[in-house]
Amino acid sequence: MQFYYYSLMAGIVSLIIAILAAFLVMKKNEGTNKMKEIAAAIREGASAYLNRQLQVIAVFTVILAILFYIFLKPNGLQIVIAFLVGAIASYLTAYLGMNVAVRTNLRTAKSAEKGIKEAFWTAILGGSVTGFAAVGFSLIGISVLLAYLTISNVVLLIGFGFGASLISLFARVGGGIYTKAADVGADLVGKTELNLPEDDPRNPAVIADNVGDNVGDCAGMAADVFESYSVTLVATLLIAAAFATAHGFSYPLYIAIMGVAASMISIPLMGQYGRHPNRALYVGMGSAVAIAAALDYLLTLVLHLSLLSVVPVLSGLVLAFLLFWVADYYTGGKSKSVIKIAKASTSGAGTNVITGLAVGLRSTWMPVLFIVVAIMASYYSAGVYGIGIAAVGMLSITATVLTIDSFGPITDNAGGIAEMASLPSSVRKVTDHLDALGNTTKATTKAYAIGGAALSATALFVAFAQAVHLANLDALNPTVTVGIFIGALIPFVFSSFLMESVGYAANLMVEEVRRQVRTIKGLMQGKAKPDYARAVDIATVNALKSLIVPELIAIVTPIAVGLILGKAALGGLLVGMIPSALMLALFMANSGAAMDNAKKYIESGKFGGKGSDAHKAAVVGDTLGDPLKDTAGPALNSMIKVVSTISILLAPLFLTFALLH
Amino acid sequence: MQFYYYSLMAGIVSLIIAILAAFLVMKKNEGTNKMKEIAAAIREGASAYLNRQLQVIAVFTVILAILFYIFLKPNGLQIVIAFLVGAIASYLTAYLGMNVAVRTNLRTAKSAEKGIKEAFWTAILGGSVTGFAAVGFSLIGISVLLAYLTISNVVLLIGFGFGASLISLFARVGGGIYTKAADVGADLVGKTELNLPEDDPRNPAVIADNVGDNVGDCAGMAADVFESYSVTLVATLLIAAAFATAHGFSYPLYIAIMGVAASMISIPLMGQYGRHPNRALYVGMGSAVAIAAALDYLLTLVLHLSLLSVVPVLSGLVLAFLLFWVADYYTGGKSKSVIKIAKASTSGAGTNVITGLAVGLRSTWMPVLFIVVAIMASYYSAGVYGIGIAAVGMLSITATVLTIDSFGPITDNAGGIAEMASLPSSVRKVTDHLDALGNTTKATTKAYAIGGAALSATALFVAFAQAVHLANLDALNPTVTVGIFIGALIPFVFSSFLMESVGYAANLMVEEVRRQVRTIKGLMQGKAKPDYARAVDIATVNALKSLIVPELIAIVTPIAVGLILGKAALGGLLVGMIPSALMLALFMANSGAAMDNAKKYIESGKFGGKGSDAHKAAVVGDTLGDPLKDTAGPALNSMIKVVSTISILLAPLFLTFALLH
Repeated sequence: MQFYYYSLMAGIVSLIIAILAAFLVMKKNEGTNKMKEIAAAIREGASAYLNRQLQVIAVFTVILAILFYIFLKPNGLQIVIAFLVGAIASYLTAYLGMNVAVRTNLRTAKSAEKGIKEAFWTAILGGSVTGFAAVGFSLIGISVLLAYLTISNVVLLIGFGFGASLISLFARVGGGIYTKAADVGADLVGKTELNLPEDDPRNPAVIADNVGDNVGDCAGMAADVFESYSVTLVATLLIAAAFATAHGFSYPLYIAIMGVAASMISIPLMGQYGRHPNRALYVGMGSAVAIAAALDYLLTLVLHLSLLSVVPVLSGLVLAFLLFWVADYYTGGKSKSVIKIAKASTSGAGTNVITGLAVGLRSTWMPVLFIVVAIMASYYSAGVYGIGIAAVGMLSITATVLTIDSFGPITDNAGGIAEMASLPSSVRKVTDHLDALGNTTKATTKAYAIGGAALSATALFVAFAQAVHLANLDALNPTVTVGIFIGALIPFVFSSFLMESVGYAANLMVEEVRRQVRTIKGLMQGKAKPDYARAVDIATVNALKSLIVPELIAIVTPIAVGLILGKAALGGLLVGMIPSALMLALFMANSGAAMDNAKKYIESGKFGGKGSDAHKAAVVGDTLGDPLKDTAGPALNSMIKVVSTISILLAPLFLTFALLH
Repeated sequence: MQFYYYSLMAGIVSLIIAILAAFLVMKKNEGTNKMKEIAAAIREGASAYLNRQLQVIAVFTVILAILFYIFLKPNGLQIVIAFLVGAIASYLTAYLGMNVAVRTNLRTAKSAEKGIKEAFWTAILGGSVTGFAAVGFSLIGISVLLAYLTISNVVLLIGFGFGASLISLFARVGGGIYTKAADVGADLVGKTELNLPEDDPRNPAVIADNVGDNVGDCAGMAADVFESYSVTLVATLLIAAAFATAHGFSYPLYIAIMGVAASMISIPLMGQYGRHPNRALYVGMGSAVAIAAALDYLLTLVLHLSLLSVVPVLSGLVLAFLLFWVADYYTGGKSKSVIKIAKASTSGAGTNVITGLAVGLRSTWMPVLFIVVAIMASYYSAGVYGIGIAAVGMLSITATVLTIDSFGPITDNAGGIAEMASLPSSVRKVTDHLDALGNTTKATTKAYAIGGAALSATALFVAFAQAVHLANLDALNPTVTVGIFIGALIPFVFSSFLMESVGYAANLMVEEVRRQVRTIKGLMQGKAKPDYARAVDIATVNALKSLIVPELIAIVTPIAVGLILGKAALGGLLVGMIPSALMLALFMANSGAAMDNAKKYIESGKFGGKGSDAHKAAVVGDTLGDPLKDTAGPALNSMIKVVSTISILLAPLFLTFALLH
């Protein structure tokens, strides 16, 4: 039996688990009519957005498919098929995960009546649908394509990777702009001008805000990690094709299977610790890493590999845990950095944001050092193939990480529904606790996604060099230098568009909320209902409008550099882009999370507490942090992979045609 | 006669011009006793800071000199001499320039009585002292060292470059933290809490703020550009030593001489347009570039060089002008970006800073594209030596640019003195106009300094490769990859310390101002004088305390990477660091300048004007922008050159000793 039948089976098992988990969630009690009504509004908004986003994506996808078919002869058809399979699998993951999440939110709120353990488990169960769906669809897609393309054409799998990257970029950019335009807009008027609490039903932007959590943190993150997972496997298979080793092709897929097995144990284990959710998350991450490591060790024995070959996969797994930890260290609710920002808030919003950005800038050093050590360890034990394996090892526990991540938007929504439906304070205490924890999980899993993207992009860079037959890439060659400068530039320009879009759309949202408060009589007294749909529409339209330019930057820049300056410059572009994007993403994600938690720290009664001047200052920091951590930062992950995969995909063009060189 | 006697003479002439200009300034009227009193307070604060900074520098310098003497046998003595000459020349430039600036400020305020042309010329004349002193000391230092070391030992000139870099880093970091801690502290309480106008004498931090302008923008910038100028010449001489061409050694120095000549014409020319200061600056920059280009063309004819060899120097000169223009395009008082930020302020401080950072991120693309084109043009016309020549060409008009730059702190101080001494509103109108223009010049010359640093670092990178005998630097080699990641990391961590220091010291300043307002009776009624000296002391002590860690990061990281991972990783570090620092510096400098001008735009009566909510929001952006544009951003210039020069200086160590490889 071919090795890819095993991974196909693992994929099918994952999908069955996802469906089972979805069933278990759906069986749970939905609560009151009021809760159902609110959840339905969120669900409709989210589905409407995803459907409209799909239309934009479809246009891009069809155009690209036609271009690939024409320009990538003689393999055009196979590449188009792989591309479409990747795109569809990615969208299905995001779609399924989000649709379950918007049904888990109210059930989590309801189950909070029975205590924290039950609510925690409901949210985790809902999140695990996304987790297992991602690895399931990915493994099925890759395995089927391997059977269709055969090993000798494995290089065409890059089409699958690019399909996943493209969708991921759309989901990250669109979802990210949506969620933060709504969030910032809701906060700016609601909290600052009207003095409403979070998720107050009188705030016209409140439904849009809750929709945003789902389309951004849930669908966006799912597509992002689905992509990292898929692309890493593809890159490693491509590297294996060049450095043919005995187990070159099968080994990465076997590691992926071990990861699925580890997640199958670690997720229920997490549920056992539901009474102490903070500890439960560390148990989940820790056990996933430990079990995967043990299984990977056994794998080495079964496959009769040298013991040295377990080093890369271990490096990747340990890296996953360390990145998880370090994000918590810098951005955790009571970390030194967060308290420092909270303290700086006492002298105003200016010092708050200065300190917040300083924390983000500082927070880059440990992750980068960890990544660097993982790369060195992997390379010295197994060559460049080892770097791919380290990335695969790190991403093998994707199901667990995505479960923990999806926990965030689910509990965030559950808190919102509990607030809007005026559930008793005992319930709200539970949902608030889980909501706060959700903020931490979002930050920690983001660090994982960023690290995974960087490692995966490094593997893709190696694959790129092989695809364009670069034996070396001399950084002393000024053409390469020029490529490096351009590469370092892309992440800055790309994220400027995202930040600007959020600022612009939030501004519109603010105006709309102010307008409704002014024109709808009795709104502030709770006698009239706001027009939620208008706010949802503003977020939707602006997110979709803002998609185009960033997408084009990511797609057109590498093509232009490759066609005009040639493959060496394009290689330089990748070399310059990966670290630049890594730093910027870490800086943005951690600044934002730390400023968010500094605000929460003050709200817990420190430095004057809620309503104090320090609190107002901290709200400004939180507002700035929002697009940093949830729009620009995460979108960089998808961007570097779109740039990397299209560079490999179009390698034949760059080889036959280039203006200079 | 040896070619370096010509450059020695040019240096002496420059110095004579500087002294003459200083005399002309000193002859001008100092104004009222009140003005003299204020100016004396600023002068004393500035001198006190520079003297105490010198003590810290002296400790570092002596330790490093001893280490160089011991470890860099057999050339230890020559290197130490070159190092000390560089350090002393740099400090003298900063010292002289600043001492004239703190005497020009009140004379500018006084001459504003006679109209804008007279005031403009006074400020320009004072600024030209710094401009000509910088090129004078640099040319004298290099020429004398060339005579002492002889051409065959030209590589030891790197000691001079490192000396200049070290001082520059101290001046940039210390001065940058000082100026912004004082500025932010003064603004946070003064403008926001007490509703005092800028430079109100009742604000206890107002003298510290004015001192900061001098030690940061004047002394810091002078040392920075002195360093770029010197280091670029050194790097090009080093490249010439490897690719020996007929005019390899003399050509860069001749270009420098042409630049001095061009500045001698362009600066008086600027004075002629003093009635329209905005236009005058473009005249100054434009004429300097045009005259230098013409002289460099004649030089090509005289030296019988091929016409192609004029391309690099032209690229550098055009680049200088374009960088000047593009900063104005993004951050100019009425630019589209600035208005966008001002508009975003209407929905609060959050959207203001989001939009402000977005503008900064976006503003990177044109400068990088210009730099890339300049590199390509230079390389294809004259090889890697051409890149050095482009940098020399760009920096040859340093005297003009530094003159325009020093104009900023002088007019800023003049405005402050006019305000504090309650000069008539007709005078204040003139000083306010010049002060506003000074903000633009600070932004535009900063872009020049950043671009110059990037180009000069690229030339240093080439020189480094030769020093460690790297024939190529393969970015596919994971050791190099690791170096690249670490290199990209340094600027982020480095600037985090600067941002944090400003936030911390500003916080202390805020507390001190609040304390004085609370405890000194009659202060707010103008009946009692604040304790200015305490505020000055807080800024001084904290700036000096914050110097150490950033200095150590810049010095120790390359040494550690070179000794542990070897020369290839260190090469990778430079490759990763230069673009990372360039992007970050442009982003920070332009974000800050644009947010500053957005605030000023609102103050001019737009979007609600002074005192409106939009204005309060814009003040927050300005506060964040302060350390971005005046502390972290500019210090990165000095940092990349310290890292580059020490890597070359210690090349012999990395060749004989490295743990790995």
